[in-house]
Amino acid sequence: MSDVVLTHNQYGKAENRVVRITRDNPRHEIEDLNVTSQLRGDFAAAHLEGDNSHVVATDTQKNTIFAYALDGVGSPESFLLRLAEHFTGDFDWVTGGRWAAEQYTWARINDHDHSFYRTNAETRTAVVVRDGETDTVIAGFHGLTVLKSTESGFEGYPKDRYTTLKETNDRILATDIATRWRYNTGDVDYNAAYADIRAIILDTFTQGYSAALQQTLYQMAEAVLAAHPEVDEIKFSCPNKHHFVVDLSPFGLENPNEVFYAADRPYGLIEATVQRADATDASAAWVGVAGFC
Amino acid sequence: MSDVVLTHNQYGKAENRVVRITRDNPRHEIEDLNVTSQLRGDFAAAHLEGDNSHVVATDTQKNTIFAYALDGVGSPESFLLRLAEHFTGDFDWVTGGRWAAEQYTWARINDHDHSFYRTNAETRTAVVVRDGETDTVIAGFHGLTVLKSTESGFEGYPKDRYTTLKETNDRILATDIATRWRYNTGDVDYNAAYADIRAIILDTFTQGYSAALQQTLYQMAEAVLAAHPEVDEIKFSCPNKHHFVVDLSPFGLENPNEVFYAADRPYGLIEATVQRADATDASAAWVGVAGFC
Amino acid sequence: MSDVVLTHNQYGKAENRVVRITRDNPRHEIEDLNVTSQLRGDFAAAHLEGDNSHVVATDTQKNTIFAYALDGVGSPESFLLRLAEHFTGDFDWVTGGRWAAEQYTWARINDHDHSFYRTNAETRTAVVVRDGETDTVIAGFHGLTVLKSTESGFEGYPKDRYTTLKETNDRILATDIATRWRYNTGDVDYNAAYADIRAIILDTFTQGYSAALQQTLYQMAEAVLAAHPEVDEIKFSCPNKHHFVVDLSPFGLENPNEVFYAADRPYGLIEATVQRADATDASAAWVGVAGFC
Amino acid sequence: MSDVVLTHNQYGKAENRVVRITRDNPRHEIEDLNVTSQLRGDFAAAHLEGDNSHVVATDTQKNTIFAYALDGVGSPESFLLRLAEHFTGDFDWVTGGRWAAEQYTWARINDHDHSFYRTNAETRTAVVVRDGETDTVIAGFHGLTVLKSTESGFEGYPKDRYTTLKETNDRILATDIATRWRYNTGDVDYNAAYADIRAIILDTFTQGYSAALQQTLYQMAEAVLAAHPEVDEIKFSCPNKHHFVVDLSPFGLENPNEVFYAADRPYGLIEATVQRADATDASAAWVGVAGFC
Repeated sequence: MSDVVLTHNQYGKAENRVVRITRDNPRHEIEDLNVTSQLRGDFAAAHLEGDNSHVVATDTQKNTIFAYALDGVGSPESFLLRLAEHFTGDFDWVTGGRWAAEQYTWARINDHDHSFYRTNAETRTAVVVRDGETDTVIAGFHGLTVLKSTESGFEGYPKDRYTTLKETNDRILATDIATRWRYNTGDVDYNAAYADIRAIILDTFTQGYSAALQQTLYQMAEAVLAAHPEVDEIKFSCPNKHHFVVDLSPFGLENPNEVFYAADRPYGLIEATVQRADATDASAAWVGVAGFC
Repeated sequence: MSDVVLTHNQYGKAENRVVRITRDNPRHEIEDLNVTSQLRGDFAAAHLEGDNSHVVATDTQKNTIFAYALDGVGSPESFLLRLAEHFTGDFDWVTGGRWAAEQYTWARINDHDHSFYRTNAETRTAVVVRDGETDTVIAGFHGLTVLKSTESGFEGYPKDRYTTLKETNDRILATDIATRWRYNTGDVDYNAAYADIRAIILDTFTQGYSAALQQTLYQMAEAVLAAHPEVDEIKFSCPNKHHFVVDLSPFGLENPNEVFYAADRPYGLIEATVQRADATDASAAWVGVAGFC
Repeated sequence: MSDVVLTHNQYGKAENRVVRITRDNPRHEIEDLNVTSQLRGDFAAAHLEGDNSHVVATDTQKNTIFAYALDGVGSPESFLLRLAEHFTGDFDWVTGGRWAAEQYTWARINDHDHSFYRTNAETRTAVVVRDGETDTVIAGFHGLTVLKSTESGFEGYPKDRYTTLKETNDRILATDIATRWRYNTGDVDYNAAYADIRAIILDTFTQGYSAALQQTLYQMAEAVLAAHPEVDEIKFSCPNKHHFVVDLSPFGLENPNEVFYAADRPYGLIEATVQRADATDASAAWVGVAGFC
Repeated sequence: MSDVVLTHNQYGKAENRVVRITRDNPRHEIEDLNVTSQLRGDFAAAHLEGDNSHVVATDTQKNTIFAYALDGVGSPESFLLRLAEHFTGDFDWVTGGRWAAEQYTWARINDHDHSFYRTNAETRTAVVVRDGETDTVIAGFHGLTVLKSTESGFEGYPKDRYTTLKETNDRILATDIATRWRYNTGDVDYNAAYADIRAIILDTFTQGYSAALQQTLYQMAEAVLAAHPEVDEIKFSCPNKHHFVVDLSPFGLENPNEVFYAADRPYGLIEATVQRADATDASAAWVGVAGFC
């Protein structure tokens, strides 16, 4: 079978649940991450011959993640960059990799020093892809469910044989925001940028009339890129979570957009990328990010 | 088979996702529920003979839920009580039933009039069980994840052949609070009571040193019952979400309770009921509530 | 607060994932369980005073489960009975408890000696409740999805103001079978009984015309009780998984019950208990079994 | 903001749950799919100006899916190709798209004519990506859990400061197989190819000693490509589901690889692509396939 070749491959330890408590003084801090490490490089012998001499054990990758957490996390992006540096620095056949994290947010209970509750509004994400000398840092979040109870519609779409949808200029618009953006520099305060971009996205969602979720996503993207020159590209992958006005007329009742049935499936799915015209091509770094075209 | 009898039975429509927008003025309100209706009464003919003349269609129950939402929700408890009244009032063979709801919380984005995000910290629950003339109202919530980064330990437990656990007086205590409480009167401001009981539980969690999750749950229960005479009984079913200190000594590192591995399974599971000594027995109303002893 | 009392309580280690390989000869056997152990007895001091001298650590319970698996599993029921015997025998303040398991089924790949795939059609369940001298053994399964593409209907139900459902004598009937049955004796070959009861339930599902899911569940129950004198009681909790005929008439197409939309929520939910007229009352043992009235 | 551009975008209706019953004679057939349709083309006006004149409603896409199911499904791949043909043929600004499906498998209960149960061992997947004149068809499955109870090990890996893993030549190897393969021709009997490739993968899993999951995945890939010239490329993304031998020595017990703890997280994650040396580059078609490097 001389004509068959191993191409893209990566391996590592997924979903290492790291909780880091900073307790230098009585007012503790908590950082809560789910970290995945995957190495790329010369691993052909393992696949073809069962020779593991290049296979840094996934168990070793796990140990390293926990050991590195002792020096602090800071931000998921900077933590992943340190892991990338370690693995590509210590093993010369490791030429790159993909490191990813989810971060969960905790808030203090009644401003207490060491008691917290998990807020859960959204899950923060970070990805670092290293390919030789090039690092790509992608930040984002998912699961932020938002809803406008008016100032949204859908009209003017083409009608064909299969069209039964009625036009409306007053509907509920609801989605779970999932977004990822790519930085064009390493000179970023990742936590501050995250907080501000999240705030811009939420604020943009509230503004004006939405002619379609496509328009709303584009406006969010535009606002982020306008305010953050360190971002070259932003993607959204968002369901249109349908809230159908319930027809109460069979019961002799009018329903002036007050009672809705929140449907599960099917749902609309709108995905878009907005980027600077002069952005570099980083499409390889996006491979494997679920749900983004 | 004369010796076989149909005993407990109920049926209905589960998980009706009702979203109610109150839009009498530009500042909208949103109520978001997942409602289940189950009827009890004389349904033997359907089971034994396929005679559906008593079977109020589950589709009809669904329609009724949405129609009743037009008159407003108010609180999940009061909404479920109205459903109970309707079904037992309109169909004389329906002698009772079980109505349950989850409620999801939304907050305004930047105090906007009609734009919201889902907060997700916990899910509120309500159950109404009607049995003839008796209504039992059980409120609660689940999924509120809390954590203390110190002031918790576990010592003084019995040791046997299978004991390997080390004693500690400084560990992370984390749990997902799931609780249900039963009211002893219908004269309750359900939303206000909910908010206050949730606050008491959170506040109690922060206080003092926890010798075991058992002690913490009991203290929460006691505080709720002390402050709320309208509550006769409260139950907790809470995992002990283990956060294991990672042993970094093989790498020549000390880990003074700073880096933890958050485990999934197995987990401790602590369940307790605390009630007034003179509380009536309502055990029948608790049947089918998942996870509560 | 002299008027507040601790009543029902239990605690233990949940979801211990035990895989037992029997490898006495080259043809291996695999048993795959998810075991939960919860102890009941005199644990008041832990709750009220933080005194753990009676609290057999949940970690110890976990260790015991794995140690006992070394002697083999056999059936989930017999394994749980051995755990009950151990904990109530070794600790005199442990007067009972609840032990539960899920079991996952594996089949051989091409009849290979030590290679298996997980079949996943259903999850087997077992519960042992010990209360002093009394053991209750409840077997069952959940997640077995079945469907009849014809020979099912729903007619003759009462119509009220909120009824819009159309009668039909040809629909899809689909459900996820969840069932639990209680044995009236300890003299049972649990694996053989399980296999036969599962087969009876499946076979009954195929037979005849179903006037409602209620009738089908009752027939299943009756058939199990007729064939298995060692079973005193059986419960079903089954969704009516709606498959709606899609109206293709707006597109000029007829749909003679060929194209269906499989809906998620809401769903019907039918629950029933059938028991021998002379069965003992075991309602306490059923408390906490999710989803069963 | 002249420097910001909309690039990749697609939209449609996701997770349309289509059940198709073929009932030309008393022996019915069932096909059960979850279909997602996403269109690509000229949709800039919707994003930039809220002009929906090109936006074929996602509701229309849903209707079309159900209408097309009336003509039969056949295989998920051929069904998706028909959808691609329709949307790109009927709307000239739709230049391509992505159509995806999951298919669920049902088996007859006791060889009954119209009664089925869902087998659930794995979920079949299909993706069609059309880009102008080019169609890419990717088939696959996920969720097939397999396990070898011996004939697997992991040795010879590099040791560094963070390595604590012990070498072994006898462990459990378990994974959930997720795989996708790309056809190089449209002249395929998709159902027959699927069945045979699934069988080859399972059979290869059973064979010989596995020095690492990497080696096993490569052998599977090689076997598929050897037997199926119509496949140009195959990818695997598979967790190493750790089964840890439980240390029973603290209890005075030996555990000769009989009792294992099946861990949830973290897990190893091994991903690899194997392709023909002369395969065309289809990397664009793989974008958005979750979990594949």
